[in-house]
Amino acid sequence: MTSADLSIDSLIGELTTLGRISEAEPPVVTRVVFGEADRRARAYVKGLCADAGLTVTEDAIGNTFARWVGTDPHLGPIGTGSHIDAIPNAGLYDGCVGVLGGLEAIRTLQKLGFRPRRSIELVIFTAEEPTRFGIGCLGSRMMAGALGAEAARTLRDNEGRGLEELRQAAGFTGPLESIPLSAGRFAGFIELHIEQGPELERKGIDVGLVTHIAAPASVRILMEGEGGHAGATLMPGRRDALAAAAELILALENGARSTGAIDTVATVGVCEVFPGAVNSIPSRVRLETDIRDIEAARRDGVIAALHGACDEVQKRRGVKISWELVNADPPATCDPAILAALEASAKAAGRSYQMMVSRAYHDSLFMARVAPVAMLFIPCRGGISHRPDEYAAPEWIGAGVHVLARTLAHLAS
Amino acid sequence: MTSADLSIDSLIGELTTLGRISEAEPPVVTRVVFGEADRRARAYVKGLCADAGLTVTEDAIGNTFARWVGTDPHLGPIGTGSHIDAIPNAGLYDGCVGVLGGLEAIRTLQKLGFRPRRSIELVIFTAEEPTRFGIGCLGSRMMAGALGAEAARTLRDNEGRGLEELRQAAGFTGPLESIPLSAGRFAGFIELHIEQGPELERKGIDVGLVTHIAAPASVRILMEGEGGHAGATLMPGRRDALAAAAELILALENGARSTGAIDTVATVGVCEVFPGAVNSIPSRVRLETDIRDIEAARRDGVIAALHGACDEVQKRRGVKISWELVNADPPATCDPAILAALEASAKAAGRSYQMMVSRAYHDSLFMARVAPVAMLFIPCRGGISHRPDEYAAPEWIGAGVHVLARTLAHLAS
Repeated sequence: MTSADLSIDSLIGELTTLGRISEAEPPVVTRVVFGEADRRARAYVKGLCADAGLTVTEDAIGNTFARWVGTDPHLGPIGTGSHIDAIPNAGLYDGCVGVLGGLEAIRTLQKLGFRPRRSIELVIFTAEEPTRFGIGCLGSRMMAGALGAEAARTLRDNEGRGLEELRQAAGFTGPLESIPLSAGRFAGFIELHIEQGPELERKGIDVGLVTHIAAPASVRILMEGEGGHAGATLMPGRRDALAAAAELILALENGARSTGAIDTVATVGVCEVFPGAVNSIPSRVRLETDIRDIEAARRDGVIAALHGACDEVQKRRGVKISWELVNADPPATCDPAILAALEASAKAAGRSYQMMVSRAYHDSLFMARVAPVAMLFIPCRGGISHRPDEYAAPEWIGAGVHVLARTLAHLAS
Repeated sequence: MTSADLSIDSLIGELTTLGRISEAEPPVVTRVVFGEADRRARAYVKGLCADAGLTVTEDAIGNTFARWVGTDPHLGPIGTGSHIDAIPNAGLYDGCVGVLGGLEAIRTLQKLGFRPRRSIELVIFTAEEPTRFGIGCLGSRMMAGALGAEAARTLRDNEGRGLEELRQAAGFTGPLESIPLSAGRFAGFIELHIEQGPELERKGIDVGLVTHIAAPASVRILMEGEGGHAGATLMPGRRDALAAAAELILALENGARSTGAIDTVATVGVCEVFPGAVNSIPSRVRLETDIRDIEAARRDGVIAALHGACDEVQKRRGVKISWELVNADPPATCDPAILAALEASAKAAGRSYQMMVSRAYHDSLFMARVAPVAMLFIPCRGGISHRPDEYAAPEWIGAGVHVLARTLAHLAS
């Protein structure tokens, strides 16, 4: 197989078409799960899969499986894929490169007359982005059994609409209990994705072979102090919720910096202040924090230090601080055999590569709980993602699909 | 004059009626300047003034003057009054006690057959609250010439509607240039107001005689850093706008606490974060701060220290910080002769009193630039104001009106 065997122009055309299926004006991509654009995007991709002769099935939450049936259909298939939902104000490539690139890898192998022994299965995960329900990787999380049916039924969006109502309105009506994958359902899984960081582009390397996926955690912190007139309330008596929040923002930043590990990151992305008037002391503040590391114990140390800071600030300032651990997922270690296959394929394809860590989380984090996985990164310009100017050059995408196709062929043989 | 001469029941009835003229369901009071409720409230109060035989005039921004003409109408009148606009989710007493209480003082003197030599004039100031145009004491600020016609014409509300359009729609069509008061227009001015602090109620004192009104200042600070993926962006390269903001919030608190003066207060009441997603590093934060002291130099020292902190944080964090001084008004010192008259009246009325400072600002802050002024505080329950449960007992209001009426009589004789 050479890169000339790939139809990269068609693939770019499909990515562009998919990007136009958006709740926002192109080039802005917004596709919130179960929204109208998400539903049209699903139909478009399923149509492409059917055109390629794949057998398409969907589970009760809309995870979609498009299978190229192998000569030994009783063997566990090799999976590849990603997601097509997009946060508000996103771009063309996050997730979609893994879905449409995976499909192009399959079509290339078909074109070359390859006959897989194991089935090869394209997976489109539901709601990788936390936009609607506040929790990332909803589809793969449920496939891995990390989120049960009962807990899933309590999820609501910002408008108070429940997951149950929304998935059924989107046409997914089966029992949620049927979603978790049985052992051996996949013999392996590979996710092609843009790096969402600057490393590959900066070094001019074609592909990154992901050895670890960092463990994400999220904590919501609610501070309840006492409001009052900004002029009339003297400083000594104050219980200012925003001043307390400011201490925690800095404590978390300091906690992440002081582990000594470059892989520890922590962020306060949300800070909501009530009542939010210039002449009122803030009585209530809500923080949402994101803490990650490739080592769960180190990450959990940062979380524990933040918890300690909450206790100390609560006592000293008389501000009531409540704490909700939204999620604290374990990191994933990628499978050495799949990594070896990726490495061999990269060499055979004449592509430069390096081993690397994924600091963003992906559906592969959860797939790793039920199958051997690895991820294959391609560069993205300036490391930018989650923005309309997110960009991966056609030749970068081509290199990724090339390595992916060779690896799928190897693993499915 | 004894307290039996006052019609406190009627006054409470009028306060209650005025409170029902609201954009919100009672007991919540919301009256934004030039809105429908503000216009109905103006009509109600003007009707009461006309019933009392007062001569009512209005200026080009709706400041309203209701005059009881004295026997020597060429002398500068003694003014009293306050405002009837109310922030969203407010209560019955802030401002309204000074307007309707001032009117009741006049009616009591009329009832007792008093004939003033100087005219006594009730003033209802337009837009003491900053709700609509972002700047407090709009009416009195323009009367004092502290906000010129040209600058006033640039003011817009949150929906982009200009002051010019809104005042004219409310029926105020004269030239804005005609608003500033000429020298000697008032021989003196007294504002009756709830304390908006807990001191008088806690000590069981009837009235507070205000010697100084603290000098308010407000600064808007915009931080522009760099956004990015909360997982993929390593800590060393970050330019997190919220972490920079957290440092400034604490620097301002520390600045106010370290002057050594109990009268210095500083507050960050607004903190808006963009994009405000849990997995995104904040790229932009807007803070709105409020800084006050009874000594302008000390307050300006706190502002200068905050400015210094901005410079330092900007350099160290690589976050661009821009700074807008929204207002920095001088404090007011109340007039010793009026204070002496208030003190004598309190004694004669058998009311307990103490000298105190107003930490909230009031229209008197600006009236002090064009006339001798003083303020007369009455207790409010728990020091609470700007809330629907704001409360002043009828006997507290009665005491304030009693002292006010005696003082007006003395000064107008």
